Amino acid sequence: MKHLIIASTSTVFGGAPLDYILDALTELYKNTDTILFIPYARPGGISHEEYTNNIQLVFNKINKKVVGIHEFESPTEALQEAKGIYVGGGNTFVLVSQLYKSNCINTLKEVVLKGTPYLGTSAGSNICGLTMSTTNDMPIVYPPSFKTLGFVPFNINPHYLDPIGGNTHMGETRETRIKEFHHYNTPPVVGLREGSWIEIKGDTMLLKGPLKAIIFEYKKTPFEIETGTSLKDIK
Amino acid sequence: MKHLIIASTSTVFGGAPLDYILDALTELYKNTDTILFIPYARPGGISHEEYTNNIQLVFNKINKKVVGIHEFESPTEALQEAKGIYVGGGNTFVLVSQLYKSNCINTLKEVVLKGTPYLGTSAGSNICGLTMSTTNDMPIVYPPSFKTLGFVPFNINPHYLDPIGGNTHMGETRETRIKEFHHYNTPPVVGLREGSWIEIKGDTMLLKGPLKAIIFEYKKTPFEIETGTSLKDIK
Repeated sequence: MKHLIIASTSTVFGGAPLDYILDALTELYKNTDTILFIPYARPGGISHEEYTNNIQLVFNKINKKVVGIHEFESPTEALQEAKGIYVGGGNTFVLVSQLYKSNCINTLKEVVLKGTPYLGTSAGSNICGLTMSTTNDMPIVYPPSFKTLGFVPFNINPHYLDPIGGNTHMGETRETRIKEFHHYNTPPVVGLREGSWIEIKGDTMLLKGPLKAIIFEYKKTPFEIETGTSLKDIK
Repeated sequence: MKHLIIASTSTVFGGAPLDYILDALTELYKNTDTILFIPYARPGGISHEEYTNNIQLVFNKINKKVVGIHEFESPTEALQEAKGIYVGGGNTFVLVSQLYKSNCINTLKEVVLKGTPYLGTSAGSNICGLTMSTTNDMPIVYPPSFKTLGFVPFNINPHYLDPIGGNTHMGETRETRIKEFHHYNTPPVVGLREGSWIEIKGDTMLLKGPLKAIIFEYKKTPFEIETGTSLKDIK
């Protein structure tokens, strides 16, 4: 049975990484003691090793061993053998480039659709959408494609940020950017605020966490959904 | 003689479009009554026609006629015949895609290096750098390359935004993003705050406007430069 947690962020303000979601992770990873971590997004450019070590410290809290995919000679074999996968945040362009370069995109998709539990945060959630075209990240490297895993039939905007009242900056708001996306693309976009996540279990897909999410559909007025709402009709 | 104005934004808070820079534009375009406008970046997804009409209203103030490049059968011929060029802001991915698609990149570079006066704002300034990799825009379309015009031997970050004190949002600051850029790329990045511009006249290249700019060099601590400073050593 498919089981995915697609989270807006690893860390909510004032909290430790993944603390707000540890109960859900205990359940997600209940059948494995070891988690395959994909550190390719390299937040702040840190090394795969350092990033993996940081994540091990977090997973110590739920008694899980973390192994980095970079430690394996064959990343695709590592994916095939994994009993639980976590793709961490950082830069989505760097993540997607490395997933293509290491030939992981198709295998990652296959194993997760077959039932390997998957956690994504931030960039690791963005790639669960149809394309990475609603990332907030800077295009610091050029990936071979913007096409991503398509675990959901829409795009994700993680770290969704509401317009800030009284802001004097003339750059685009997040809402403006997503509306621009819909001038060139038709899939819906789910704006996930920090602290929200989508949980997919078999055929169910629910919004979780304390906050509402905002849904942008092609040529429609954006609307909010309450936590606990099914996202099965967003497509 | 080369003459370029590379501006952070078209509009500063509380002002009308280009108002803060009209004197400099009168000088830039002193030898022509007609300006070729490149509306490809389509802010908010507006049409080429509507965008061009909006820009005509602005240029009425300095008695210039605006023609949109989309009105010509051959965009490259339009560029070759132009006596003044303005590339407006919007989405850099859309702009760069269309510049490649319409075969304009090389011709635009050639005519500006030969002396056709050039104004860029926002996305139109970002493309004056070596690559578009320090844009703030959302990757809503996939361009054939991130390589841009290279009128300056560095990259531009328009709408540069200082970190906001007390912000609880966990997304990356602009400074963090530019530092990530330098994990994968070596060229300097000039962060242009709204209201600043770079003016290139022949062999001179100066920071203009009321504000300082921030310079990020590979493996160095970022530093500020005062308005009036030459940028010739940033490379």
